[in-house]
Amino acid sequence: MSLNSQIFLAYIAGFLDGDGSIYVRAKPNTSYRYGYQIAPYVVFFQSTSEAKFPDLMKQIGFGKMRVRNDGMYEYTIGKHEELVKFLTDIMPFLFLKREQAKLMLEILEDKKQVQSSKDFVLLLEKIEQFRTLNYSKKRVKRTLTP
Amino acid sequence: MSLNSQIFLAYIAGFLDGDGSIYVRAKPNTSYRYGYQIAPYVVFFQSTSEAKFPDLMKQIGFGKMRVRNDGMYEYTIGKHEELVKFLTDIMPFLFLKREQAKLMLEILEDKKQVQSSKDFVLLLEKIEQFRTLNYSKKRVKRTLTP
Repeated sequence: MSLNSQIFLAYIAGFLDGDGSIYVRAKPNTSYRYGYQIAPYVVFFQSTSEAKFPDLMKQIGFGKMRVRNDGMYEYTIGKHEELVKFLTDIMPFLFLKREQAKLMLEILEDKKQVQSSKDFVLLLEKIEQFRTLNYSKKRVKRTLTP
Repeated sequence: MSLNSQIFLAYIAGFLDGDGSIYVRAKPNTSYRYGYQIAPYVVFFQSTSEAKFPDLMKQIGFGKMRVRNDGMYEYTIGKHEELVKFLTDIMPFLFLKREQAKLMLEILEDKKQVQSSKDFVLLLEKIEQFRTLNYSKKRVKRTLTP
């Protein structure tokens, strides 16, 4: 594959649209100010029998590979600055998951602006929108650390 | 997504590498000369909850969509001439499934040259190579119609 960047970004956008995942979790964690850790992820999956997959992911330039117990590779981009760069770069080429990418960028931006628990509640509501976009039917009720 | 063709082909190659399938089946069928129908497929899968998927596949310009009972879209390119055009076009951008694409093009070419059951046996052996490339452990023993 050519490393010409437009071509590579289009390829990676297709890969992510086909088999990847873009989501943000609000993990209950009392050591955080408002009782939740905001954890954003872009994840690529592939069977470990696909030997060239790690080389491919390495070309992205950041992110972390792990091998799951069920024999799947899981390549995760989780650092906020890296996600902003990555999503901004592939955005023009995304087709199926563009809404998720936009929503994540909004959340990452909003998160920096949070100044009150009211702001944080709005942020949690935005995170809830991923459930609709990613078509999960389950909704959770969240309560902030009092 | 831009319809600029290099960009679109790179995107589709990424989509296929991420979640698609390239394979050839030799289906036992006594109405065929050597007892097998050679059936090549490129298949894209996606949940039917991914509403934009049919629009995306339509841009390829050929192939057929069907909805499986398990709620998955399955988009199949199965016509020989279309497969030759499609695979030749995306070949430069494939990374994980390039070997499968090359093997299919070879098989489609060899199939046109078959003149004896000896040629056909060699073709079947080539088709067997998909099992190795696609990491299935199962091998089948084939016998030609006598």
